[in-house]
Amino acid sequence: MTGWQSFEAPAAGQDRGARLAALRTRMADAGLDGFIIPRADAHQGEYVAPSDARLAWLTGFTGSAGFAIVLTGRAGVFIDGRYRVQVRAEVNLADYTPVNWPETKPADWLRNSLPDGGRVGFDPWLHTRAEIGALEKGLNGSGIGLIAVDHNLVDAIWPDRPAPPVGAARIHDERLAGESAADRRSRLAETLRSDGQAAALLTLPDSISWLLNIRGSDIPRNPVVQAFAVLSDDGSVALFADAAKFDAATRAHLGNQVSILPPDALGAALRDLPGPVRLDPQTAPEAAFRILTEAGSEIAEGRDPAILPKARKTAAELSGMASAHRRDGVAVVRLLTWLDAQDPASLTEIDVVRRLESERRAAGAIDISFDTICGAGPNGAIIHYRVTEATNRSLTKDQIVLLDSGGQYPDGTTDITRTLSLGAAPDAIRAPYTAVLRGLIAISRARFPKGVAGAHIDALARQFLWVMGLDYDHGTGHGVGAALCVHEGPVRISRISDLPLEPGMILSNEPGYYREGEFGIRLENLIVVTPAKAEPGRDMLGFDTLTLCPFDRRLIDMGTLSREETDWLNAYHARVRDELSPLLDGAARDWLIRETRPLGQRASSV
Amino acid sequence: MTGWQSFEAPAAGQDRGARLAALRTRMADAGLDGFIIPRADAHQGEYVAPSDARLAWLTGFTGSAGFAIVLTGRAGVFIDGRYRVQVRAEVNLADYTPVNWPETKPADWLRNSLPDGGRVGFDPWLHTRAEIGALEKGLNGSGIGLIAVDHNLVDAIWPDRPAPPVGAARIHDERLAGESAADRRSRLAETLRSDGQAAALLTLPDSISWLLNIRGSDIPRNPVVQAFAVLSDDGSVALFADAAKFDAATRAHLGNQVSILPPDALGAALRDLPGPVRLDPQTAPEAAFRILTEAGSEIAEGRDPAILPKARKTAAELSGMASAHRRDGVAVVRLLTWLDAQDPASLTEIDVVRRLESERRAAGAIDISFDTICGAGPNGAIIHYRVTEATNRSLTKDQIVLLDSGGQYPDGTTDITRTLSLGAAPDAIRAPYTAVLRGLIAISRARFPKGVAGAHIDALARQFLWVMGLDYDHGTGHGVGAALCVHEGPVRISRISDLPLEPGMILSNEPGYYREGEFGIRLENLIVVTPAKAEPGRDMLGFDTLTLCPFDRRLIDMGTLSREETDWLNAYHARVRDELSPLLDGAARDWLIRETRPLGQRASSV
Repeated sequence: MTGWQSFEAPAAGQDRGARLAALRTRMADAGLDGFIIPRADAHQGEYVAPSDARLAWLTGFTGSAGFAIVLTGRAGVFIDGRYRVQVRAEVNLADYTPVNWPETKPADWLRNSLPDGGRVGFDPWLHTRAEIGALEKGLNGSGIGLIAVDHNLVDAIWPDRPAPPVGAARIHDERLAGESAADRRSRLAETLRSDGQAAALLTLPDSISWLLNIRGSDIPRNPVVQAFAVLSDDGSVALFADAAKFDAATRAHLGNQVSILPPDALGAALRDLPGPVRLDPQTAPEAAFRILTEAGSEIAEGRDPAILPKARKTAAELSGMASAHRRDGVAVVRLLTWLDAQDPASLTEIDVVRRLESERRAAGAIDISFDTICGAGPNGAIIHYRVTEATNRSLTKDQIVLLDSGGQYPDGTTDITRTLSLGAAPDAIRAPYTAVLRGLIAISRARFPKGVAGAHIDALARQFLWVMGLDYDHGTGHGVGAALCVHEGPVRISRISDLPLEPGMILSNEPGYYREGEFGIRLENLIVVTPAKAEPGRDMLGFDTLTLCPFDRRLIDMGTLSREETDWLNAYHARVRDELSPLLDGAARDWLIRETRPLGQRASSV
Repeated sequence: MTGWQSFEAPAAGQDRGARLAALRTRMADAGLDGFIIPRADAHQGEYVAPSDARLAWLTGFTGSAGFAIVLTGRAGVFIDGRYRVQVRAEVNLADYTPVNWPETKPADWLRNSLPDGGRVGFDPWLHTRAEIGALEKGLNGSGIGLIAVDHNLVDAIWPDRPAPPVGAARIHDERLAGESAADRRSRLAETLRSDGQAAALLTLPDSISWLLNIRGSDIPRNPVVQAFAVLSDDGSVALFADAAKFDAATRAHLGNQVSILPPDALGAALRDLPGPVRLDPQTAPEAAFRILTEAGSEIAEGRDPAILPKARKTAAELSGMASAHRRDGVAVVRLLTWLDAQDPASLTEIDVVRRLESERRAAGAIDISFDTICGAGPNGAIIHYRVTEATNRSLTKDQIVLLDSGGQYPDGTTDITRTLSLGAAPDAIRAPYTAVLRGLIAISRARFPKGVAGAHIDALARQFLWVMGLDYDHGTGHGVGAALCVHEGPVRISRISDLPLEPGMILSNEPGYYREGEFGIRLENLIVVTPAKAEPGRDMLGFDTLTLCPFDRRLIDMGTLSREETDWLNAYHARVRDELSPLLDGAARDWLIRETRPLGQRASSV
């Protein structure tokens, strides 16, 4: 059996010059001076199917975000801070110029590169309304025109382009969802009726999978069915997806209120739809807006109607997540027990990833929830590191390892990061490690009034690092799906998230610290927003922790913890021990009991 | 010599029915179904001159915010959470109905009270553009019209209305400002030119006083000159204020680039002004917008051009503030020394306020910066408490006292709150007191990246209370002027403030906790935003503390403080001792040395 994760290094140096030349010929034929090639597909997901990997096929760049703009004389690959090193290894720098984005806006780059009257083509299915709106605004007055093409120019020059995925769909048990698909459909239909909307177009595969209580296998890591759906205000759904994905049982589960139509029927269906039609400008393709506008339909811009209901997990979903986290905790504890028994020098990052994957498989996982990040020493400082045969490092006793991983289980999705000492804990690492841990504890222990958003508590996680003049260049937490995508919108713990936190929302809690070329620290638990006790007259919320796994006590400077922080840490470890020890035996059980014994606060009094 | 603060209880039960009847007659004459009487004057300041106290004169309500709407058959007094008890004691409830605001919006109240076609009058000089815009929006489609009146209907029925104040203006020394008025005028004129604006109307007295390096005595507590000003893009200023305020020296200081014009010349001047004219919709009167619109002038809506430059204090202003805080610290330490030597039962709240005022006078204050809040026991829980002869309580050994006060000095403005135990510190108070103190310490010690706003750090001050299920219903900090208004916009530490903090901004840091009917806790220091050390590649800011006064050690539960919090507290106390002890002698010096000796962290280790 092959593993889930592949360690292949991206094919470097491949000659893609002919592809670029072919694209430019097509551009000339179409009367275009430029063409935009985004990484995204029409569903704006984190992963794309091979058939949608246009950016990688054309340019060689394999990052999870970004886009290229090809002009007749030059071509830019726009990449954010995560990919500035990687892009230079992957693209032919004679053909493509890396452009720092979002610092350089594509509109400004186009203004500097094209004369008045320039025509830039784009595929309106691959860009959201918000994205095209911002680009149009940026080009306002420049004389440069944006031209939506009917057929993607890259597809036209891609002879062996793979077919779209036809992964089998399966039923997601109503007992795990806590609500029938019929109830979900009618709940959302009621929202449409009360908002005066006749229908809504859903374009996010996880919203559709959540709504219909189905899961899919089109895309690795994300157990969703790639599809579009139109939900009508009577609760019926037209599901635009390849019929071959659905077996008889799944069809029966969907029922006669859900009709399955071919994906290419979506355009015609939109043209015939009575309005107002709800569309989310942040996620829905520009093409859908254009079709409805041309058909004279009324568009009601609004949030994907499933996105907030999906974020507020049901009791059954929370219970499934808790159960999955117990099994995942067993897998991670068994991995750590094994790791502590090895000579670090005998192991590489890939050995750890493989062993962890096999532990998860044994614990009942059906996939990993993302490619495991196992970064030893300096590799730990690369925030989105994925080990390949080319980057694989041996472990050593005097370096720490950052291990960020998760599993997909039938009943839940996990995401956990621990940073590990493999021997002598370097003293210089204990201070930032402890500051990161205290940040995680501050979020874990936090209570806050209703109405507070991620933007208001993000600093709680950073305060101990900030005081040391340190910080981390990523958010503190992302939303997490229940047996769905490990990165789920729209809730976040981040300075830019003003969406109030609500009971049942699941988030990651993952402060970190990275010293380039030396080491990386990140600690991550998943947490659930819950009602919290408060004095009379106040309505407060807090967090429960889902993740069960000890923190590496060798790296903690207990003298800097407050009494409450020490109490939290010891109570958490006691809970980890109580919940996991009945599921473990032998060396792993001994390891767990040893690693969860109470930590004393070092007296530092005068 | 009479004291600055008065302890007169608001005149209750006075018959204001005749005034209301007279107003309604005027409304009928003018063909109006309603009239709005705001607490604000045309400058939207915190204090109004007696001539502008229309709301109090008409209704009896003396709060610092709110408004009345008088209709033919009913009249509402709109008050926020601070004034819901006070309003019932002050207005005749047979004439006026208190309305909870902002929960009830005036537009909704008008929709429920008036028929289609109703006409509601208002004085456009007393409302900002933003306020009238929101009201118009709320009334949209209701058929209710808003009518700007040329002459205020209340003024017309107020026979003995006081004359507007003609307080003497004085020069604010350039050495204290750190910048000449000419430089300030040309700096702001440059902003206008680069924004393509011909002139700006300034309506905030503190902006005008800052710009021209003058101070005034029109209004108690706020040393500003009540005036309007038009700044032209050549740096010249037309100052609309009673010429009698300016003596020869002040006129000479203003120079020939500043012309003094009568206040009632403003309208005509606006009509003749070449556009575009910059106006701040948040602060400028609706009347100014209407005059410019009628004259066909182009309006450029934008922030008061002085508001951010004024918030970023110069080195000289920071030095003046530090100096004023040393003298103010001496005054407060002398007060606390005296207080600790008394039998609490022999003293009332007013005794403490009077004694503190005389200490400040001796320390060189020229005014208090706001009416001192001295709340013993349950009075401490009234957030905006001002003691009167009617509410005055005796102190007791077993209750705590909340003391919030400040002084106006020639070189600076202070604002300090301490909460004091007068004997046995009640154990139930130590936990919330310590949580409030830890919140103050968290802000004091905070560092944060550039770009962070008050909304992002507000939770640092609340986290320890939140964890206990507690909170406080006010912001954590307000901007503070340098020898100007103690409440100065626009920067704040509050969940609703997304303005990035910048070096030189001065803020209060004042978490609290209030238990109605029992006690109130608030601790407040003033802090300055300063550049802070950070690892290479990061640009971080932090705070320096201006206020110098020990915290009451009897109320601190040291066992809950972290090592860093204890270190901060001891370092702060050592600094207070070092800076103030050379300025004190005798009992006060002994008291200071005793109260600033190091506090030990109670060991609480396992």
